[in-house]
Amino acid sequence: MLSKNTVKFIKSLHQKKYRSEIGKFFVEGEKSVLEVLQSNFTVDLLLSTESFAQKNSGMLRTYRGELIQVTQNQLEQVGQYQSNDAALAVVRMKENSAFEPANEELILALDDVRDPGNLGTIIRVADWFGIKKLVFSPQTAEFYNPKVIQATMGSFTRVQFFYEDLERVFNRWQVPVYGAFLDGKNIHKLGRPSPGVLLMGNEAKGICAELEKLVTQKVTIPGFGMAESLNVAIATAILCDNFKRLMSL
Amino acid sequence: MLSKNTVKFIKSLHQKKYRSEIGKFFVEGEKSVLEVLQSNFTVDLLLSTESFAQKNSGMLRTYRGELIQVTQNQLEQVGQYQSNDAALAVVRMKENSAFEPANEELILALDDVRDPGNLGTIIRVADWFGIKKLVFSPQTAEFYNPKVIQATMGSFTRVQFFYEDLERVFNRWQVPVYGAFLDGKNIHKLGRPSPGVLLMGNEAKGICAELEKLVTQKVTIPGFGMAESLNVAIATAILCDNFKRLMSL
Repeated sequence: MLSKNTVKFIKSLHQKKYRSEIGKFFVEGEKSVLEVLQSNFTVDLLLSTESFAQKNSGMLRTYRGELIQVTQNQLEQVGQYQSNDAALAVVRMKENSAFEPANEELILALDDVRDPGNLGTIIRVADWFGIKKLVFSPQTAEFYNPKVIQATMGSFTRVQFFYEDLERVFNRWQVPVYGAFLDGKNIHKLGRPSPGVLLMGNEAKGICAELEKLVTQKVTIPGFGMAESLNVAIATAILCDNFKRLMSL
Repeated sequence: MLSKNTVKFIKSLHQKKYRSEIGKFFVEGEKSVLEVLQSNFTVDLLLSTESFAQKNSGMLRTYRGELIQVTQNQLEQVGQYQSNDAALAVVRMKENSAFEPANEELILALDDVRDPGNLGTIIRVADWFGIKKLVFSPQTAEFYNPKVIQATMGSFTRVQFFYEDLERVFNRWQVPVYGAFLDGKNIHKLGRPSPGVLLMGNEAKGICAELEKLVTQKVTIPGFGMAESLNVAIATAILCDNFKRLMSL
């Protein structure tokens, strides 16, 4: 039975303040919930409709957390989205310790990407291209924001990330930093890149002046029309695709 | 003065039914409104805050439609978005006659892309890559939906489009159709493509079986991670970037 206290608890997780205090977040939607159940995240609580439980009875046999059966209507009341989602999982956050660019081909760095939808899409793109490590400036959107989690389509379970002063990180790492600018080198004409960092800037302002000084190579997606810019998630995807292509040359 | 009737009229344009009946749509946001004023669309009515009118007095001198000064608060009541938008334009739809792939390098075709945000982002991407002509299956999202217009960031003023049975169009055109599939040829390994059509499928189902038969070359974005798929706007952007690169080889 879904108690009032549980409803109140899950609703509190819509707010960053309570997510941080409690150290938990929630995941919605059939695909995302199935992905988190199979990941190395710890699920503490699962709200499941009868149909979700029946369809996924095999997977639920090994689930050790609390399970509450709910109606679709109840799910929609506690969650963020109205959809045919059939489950909601409350999950423990993971402590992410800082990493070094040891054996990574490419690390993705974001300078103040503020929109949760953009961050989530970028995480999904990173996962598609096999990029496992991401480093975010402190003002970048929160990884555990429900809109971020939703937009990753389960890819949040397969990347490592940490929030850090990017100037400090780049100074410490001493690897090439490729920065996305409107006036950089045409990415189609770039030679084989060295392993390093791809840095993407804020939606409105791009990469800040302090970080621009630490960019080794400015890169640009060649445009052929009149649009002034591309959305940051779109630009990230195109640049990652080019990097993977160039690295296999 | 903003009359009740004008408020009612603009609110009716939030619905597809009334947009189609009246043959008008609305555009919000400073950048988009400025773009539509400079385009060959006809603006019939402009709601403008005092600050927008002052900042853009030069451009407004040549504006011949009706102008109503409003407060930010009034704007937010009639529009779709709450933001620092400073104007809203009511614009006449354009009749789009069917076009032929005469001198086009690349025409973009969408098979049932349903999400307005995706369609808008795709139009912005097309404009970035200089793709001027788009053809949509009848079930694709409506071009004049406010969410589509918003996501194009003004690029809707620079593309031609029409809605048509894609099977009929492809049979008539007799040009190569490159279709996005998860099991196509690696786009990085493709030779120089011929001028033709890039076809993208529905968000959930991809390209339908009837159209698959008319695809000349299936293409795929190589993945290196565990994500099952990419968002359709992201995939469109990556494929367009590769086409432009390959066509300049």
